[in-house]
Amino acid sequence: MNHSLNTAAVVALRWHEAPDYGRLEMLDQTRLPSVFEYLSYDSAASVAEGIRSMVVRGAPAIGVAAAYGVALEALRLQAQPREAFDAAMDIGFSVLAQSRPTAVNLFWALDRMQRYREQHKQDSPSLVAAALLDAAKAIHEEDVRINQQMGEHGAALLADGARVLTHCNAGALATAGHGTALGVIRSAVAAGKRISVIADETRPFLQGARLTAWEMVQENIPVTLITDNMAGHLMARGEVDAVIVGTDRVAANGDVANKIGTYMVAVLAARHGIPFYVACPLSTIDMSIDNGSQIPIEERASHEVTGFRETQWAAAGVQVRNPSFDVTPAELVSAIITEKGVIHAPDLAKLSALFS
Amino acid sequence: MNHSLNTAAVVALRWHEAPDYGRLEMLDQTRLPSVFEYLSYDSAASVAEGIRSMVVRGAPAIGVAAAYGVALEALRLQAQPREAFDAAMDIGFSVLAQSRPTAVNLFWALDRMQRYREQHKQDSPSLVAAALLDAAKAIHEEDVRINQQMGEHGAALLADGARVLTHCNAGALATAGHGTALGVIRSAVAAGKRISVIADETRPFLQGARLTAWEMVQENIPVTLITDNMAGHLMARGEVDAVIVGTDRVAANGDVANKIGTYMVAVLAARHGIPFYVACPLSTIDMSIDNGSQIPIEERASHEVTGFRETQWAAAGVQVRNPSFDVTPAELVSAIITEKGVIHAPDLAKLSALFS
Repeated sequence: MNHSLNTAAVVALRWHEAPDYGRLEMLDQTRLPSVFEYLSYDSAASVAEGIRSMVVRGAPAIGVAAAYGVALEALRLQAQPREAFDAAMDIGFSVLAQSRPTAVNLFWALDRMQRYREQHKQDSPSLVAAALLDAAKAIHEEDVRINQQMGEHGAALLADGARVLTHCNAGALATAGHGTALGVIRSAVAAGKRISVIADETRPFLQGARLTAWEMVQENIPVTLITDNMAGHLMARGEVDAVIVGTDRVAANGDVANKIGTYMVAVLAARHGIPFYVACPLSTIDMSIDNGSQIPIEERASHEVTGFRETQWAAAGVQVRNPSFDVTPAELVSAIITEKGVIHAPDLAKLSALFS
Repeated sequence: MNHSLNTAAVVALRWHEAPDYGRLEMLDQTRLPSVFEYLSYDSAASVAEGIRSMVVRGAPAIGVAAAYGVALEALRLQAQPREAFDAAMDIGFSVLAQSRPTAVNLFWALDRMQRYREQHKQDSPSLVAAALLDAAKAIHEEDVRINQQMGEHGAALLADGARVLTHCNAGALATAGHGTALGVIRSAVAAGKRISVIADETRPFLQGARLTAWEMVQENIPVTLITDNMAGHLMARGEVDAVIVGTDRVAANGDVANKIGTYMVAVLAARHGIPFYVACPLSTIDMSIDNGSQIPIEERASHEVTGFRETQWAAAGVQVRNPSFDVTPAELVSAIITEKGVIHAPDLAKLSALFS
């Protein structure tokens, strides 16, 4: 393991300019922290596979990756005649849209790229491709800015000395940089507060153990790893002051879809009077659905639950469920932290106002 | 993996008669289900190490193992002069008592063996040893009988078709046979009810994935494995009808110590109106302590949380907490199932009455 990495250099994805048309590089998060390697992507299909296999994960990072996927497809096809280009681009959008179902940022980014494409529909394929690459870069840069704004708004919610529990990884690795939930923690630390982090390991993919712990260790922010079933015990002992998580989709009423297990943490936090915060860029709010019951919940392969990578430990013959996300009802959410500010006790009226 | 085993032959521990003085054989539960192997024990110290390293685990099985550990020590020392025998036996009891702190069955069994020893204190060491072996065998046989009685009482609580969630392994492997929580399920199935089991994997030691799933697969009882953080999601979707767990110690007021994560399951069950049952032989009730806050909670080594066996996945440099148990307050317990019957809404008066 290489722990001498320069933190500033660790980004989930980066655009690599090249003489032909450039490529997207994504840090392989399936192998962190034991292997630190960027993989290279040059088409919509390859980016879609990178999203599906969780080389890149985290709702905001998935959105940025999808935007680059569209741009790469246009660049790859720019020498084609108009009709072939348009037909192939439609397929590229469709392949990306089918990569993962829950994170709405994916669809938000694809919708935005589709609008750029339509603005340029009179242009040649090569001009369309150039415009789409500019758009992807803009989405990329905007995500970092938004995370920093969320961080500043959210940092005010954390007291000096706070012990903050987080679930999964909503850090720099889940975004274009800084992070959503971990961005709030980073901003609080940057403001001089002494924050310590309790990281749920987050089975089955272990984003907490592998990614959140790794990000915090890199920056010397104190971090304690627990298995997911220990959070209630620590809360009951008075060892947790606040919970902050990210989200993959928020419904119009404030219901929050996030990594499986988030709901259990929220129920426990409510029982113990611990504030439960959700760091959420506006791009993660889906005003088109009324409540969380309408959010599609991805079910992944059983081998993720029966073991981890090649190590398989479960009894042969067992059936498996593997939902990747759950829904936390708005009543359990103390506040949603957005780039426009903190929304306490979120509901339809307050979320609608954000978009008006 | 050998899945053609005869279920009836699979016991956590068995006494092997031998020309010298016999030995205790314990199924190595650290390696199940990939390796199926009995290890052999011939002294108090070796049994204590088997308990500490979790070759044998589960409160009732630990109690039986400790009783045999005392008998083995007496048999091993029976040729010694009286004074040396007594001094060495005191050490043997002490070594066993220090093996694990939470399961009260350990101390219950040692107390019972100590009383047998005192009844025979006028006898020769070899007569003491023979009496202690008889006592250990009696505790062993009694545990199977008690589990069957609990099973019959508890089975009445489960409806035909019930989907029953369990945490950790409170099965045949955690006892001398039949099991506490899984014993109730076995008895319900034997009575003709169609029961399906949802098994929490139970990090970090994975007793659910490795042991509970294995026991149920052996007997063709439908079993679905989930990670610990999925229980809330299934409950919210109406996919769980009842929860049954075992316990390592119940306080006089009905507070229940059990495997880490049990408390989270109980809080979720209460939120969703799902009955939460605890299968508990009287030997697991500790009337000497008022409530759960006085139950010692074991903290185990960090490498259990940073990975599993040789596979280590967590970021280097992370701190770790590893409490093995938590406490579920009596208010969340729908009923305790004992060999004397079902105690609904347990409290001090009802538990006291069990012992009068």
